[in-house]
Amino acid sequence: MAFVRGMTCNNSTISVSLGARAYPIHIGAGVREVFLGALDRLRGGGRAVFVVTSPAVVRAQALLFEGIRAVGAVVHVVSCDGEGAKRAVELEALWEALAVGCVDRGGVVVAVGGGVVGDLSGFAAATYLRGVDFIQVPTTLLAMVDSAVGGKTGINLGAGKNLAGAFHQPVAVYADTGLLATLPPREFSAGMAEVIKTGLLGDAALFARLCGAGPLRWDHPALEGVIRRCCEIKAVVVGADERETAGGEGGRALLNLGHTFGHAIENVAGYGEYLHGEAVAVGLVLAARLSVELGLVGRDVVASVAGVLRANNLPLALRRELPVGALLEAMRRDKKARGGAMRFVVLRAVGEAGMCLVDDEVLLARVLGAAHLEPVFFA
Amino acid sequence: MAFVRGMTCNNSTISVSLGARAYPIHIGAGVREVFLGALDRLRGGGRAVFVVTSPAVVRAQALLFEGIRAVGAVVHVVSCDGEGAKRAVELEALWEALAVGCVDRGGVVVAVGGGVVGDLSGFAAATYLRGVDFIQVPTTLLAMVDSAVGGKTGINLGAGKNLAGAFHQPVAVYADTGLLATLPPREFSAGMAEVIKTGLLGDAALFARLCGAGPLRWDHPALEGVIRRCCEIKAVVVGADERETAGGEGGRALLNLGHTFGHAIENVAGYGEYLHGEAVAVGLVLAARLSVELGLVGRDVVASVAGVLRANNLPLALRRELPVGALLEAMRRDKKARGGAMRFVVLRAVGEAGMCLVDDEVLLARVLGAAHLEPVFFA
Repeated sequence: MAFVRGMTCNNSTISVSLGARAYPIHIGAGVREVFLGALDRLRGGGRAVFVVTSPAVVRAQALLFEGIRAVGAVVHVVSCDGEGAKRAVELEALWEALAVGCVDRGGVVVAVGGGVVGDLSGFAAATYLRGVDFIQVPTTLLAMVDSAVGGKTGINLGAGKNLAGAFHQPVAVYADTGLLATLPPREFSAGMAEVIKTGLLGDAALFARLCGAGPLRWDHPALEGVIRRCCEIKAVVVGADERETAGGEGGRALLNLGHTFGHAIENVAGYGEYLHGEAVAVGLVLAARLSVELGLVGRDVVASVAGVLRANNLPLALRRELPVGALLEAMRRDKKARGGAMRFVVLRAVGEAGMCLVDDEVLLARVLGAAHLEPVFFA
Repeated sequence: MAFVRGMTCNNSTISVSLGARAYPIHIGAGVREVFLGALDRLRGGGRAVFVVTSPAVVRAQALLFEGIRAVGAVVHVVSCDGEGAKRAVELEALWEALAVGCVDRGGVVVAVGGGVVGDLSGFAAATYLRGVDFIQVPTTLLAMVDSAVGGKTGINLGAGKNLAGAFHQPVAVYADTGLLATLPPREFSAGMAEVIKTGLLGDAALFARLCGAGPLRWDHPALEGVIRRCCEIKAVVVGADERETAGGEGGRALLNLGHTFGHAIENVAGYGEYLHGEAVAVGLVLAARLSVELGLVGRDVVASVAGVLRANNLPLALRRELPVGALLEAMRRDKKARGGAMRFVVLRAVGEAGMCLVDDEVLLARVLGAAHLEPVFFA
């Protein structure tokens, strides 16, 4: 594979401990080389390799796809970029393409792309022939630190985000930070929302490091370490509570900090209006505000959250007001609702999240009603 | 619940041993009473109960649905009866209905119907919110002895049968033989194909009992014992190899006796042309013929299989010839193909099945080419 010759591979590997389903996450500039070597061995062993990607990723990663095609993998490009591809009709097209491509139970589905491609193709891998192997090659920061790790796959329904899906762990994740060079800045920022979320919910030192770093870029020397730390935290949480069945104090559900608000925003604004990470950014501000309203943290936490989001070019508020009733209803429909009561991830401190049942709709409406106002006007 | 008062419940329970996912199969006339009691307790505990059924089942089981509605369950009727409902578009409609019905993670999906309703709604239960509880209430003989037990769920694709799906064990199965009173005779016979298959692959005594019994009917005194024996055999096989990952000598794959042929017939003839059990009946004759051609059993086994199928009003041959090339191609696409080689369940004796890799296409074409000829002309 001439095109990778001489590339330095700075590969640090994290392991996700899930017993028989444990898998490695390879992180670093140049791990695409390791990935292509693995594909080559799979093909050599006679296994069908079926790569799923999106139009923008094919354009941005031409060299990578040259290598993928060189090892004899089939490449399936979904019909569009963005959340619009996470639909039932696209899943069906993917299933049919796998069958037409004669992928059998020994076949491997590979996601090369962001969270949408990973979630959609992971769900297809989980359900095609009742489950085939799956590999993740995230090409966005968001996918590297969040969606490619942990085995959650799924699609959106008309009624809400990620309402249909499966838990299906990948057999390996290859996160090559070099692939981020072509990522549009808006997408990079969206990924930073999940990075900031991770620090906020589980690692005060990481959060402090982000506050001090200024805006990160793909070639920032701190980035690889930040990605690794996010993967480590997620791996520990997922290893302890793979299927989000932990009760009371949260387990995996803590990873949803800012997401109950974020999902409702995406749903009511219409998928695509905000990037997932942008909706999560606004959701983090709202979760911090809710935590203040509940008397769990001081207003300074909202200011810290807002500060680091702003430094990374993320929105702190909705661009325009959304109807509070519709947001509330979307949150109720969201899968984190249980038996009618609404369960939120809240902050106890920077670096420490917990679960809280909230039944005070007036309070929720007040928090949501200020979602289009930047925290400075609210505080 | 007045309408079940005084009904005798003759409930014999089998347990499917799957560790944390073990579940009971209740079998007998009147277990609908036990089922309705369980639903009532679920509703009393505040859990959403979402019943999926088909138009014909709602018409045939009016009294049962009176009881279901009385406990406050939502009833979702799929758009049509038969294999046509096992499609992606129907799955999507079901997902949306679950979301619109505000079914949360504590909700329970209940299949009341035959294999199609069970497979479709089981897949929806496996994937809605990444998995909710599932209960099977089979109303056909085929579902009672086969599809409702073992946790295989799925839908058909254009490219073949059951190509998308999931393993999702029910939390309980309620098989009330009284519900079979309204089953059309053709459907009852189709179920007998799976009963005969079960004897053939794993229990010579059951097979001998079927040969001696003449045509079984819903009120035949032997029927309940036959259903129980089929469930026991399937429970043992599934308990040992839940996800059909056993190699060489088969494990769960042995349950596919006659099915590689049967699926190809259904696919090439067009879904609905033959009932699944009818296609399996022809498939059993072809599997027996293949076993003869491979020198594993004598021609008398074909005659025995044909005899018991005929006694139960099942077809021994295709009603009209189907193109051999298309059948071969459908079998190759079938999920039981591995790395190109074709794997068949064959008979070693009556009551003993095994796996066999067949790469002799001439031989397969000969067996398939005689699929429209009744065995007497072939032997």
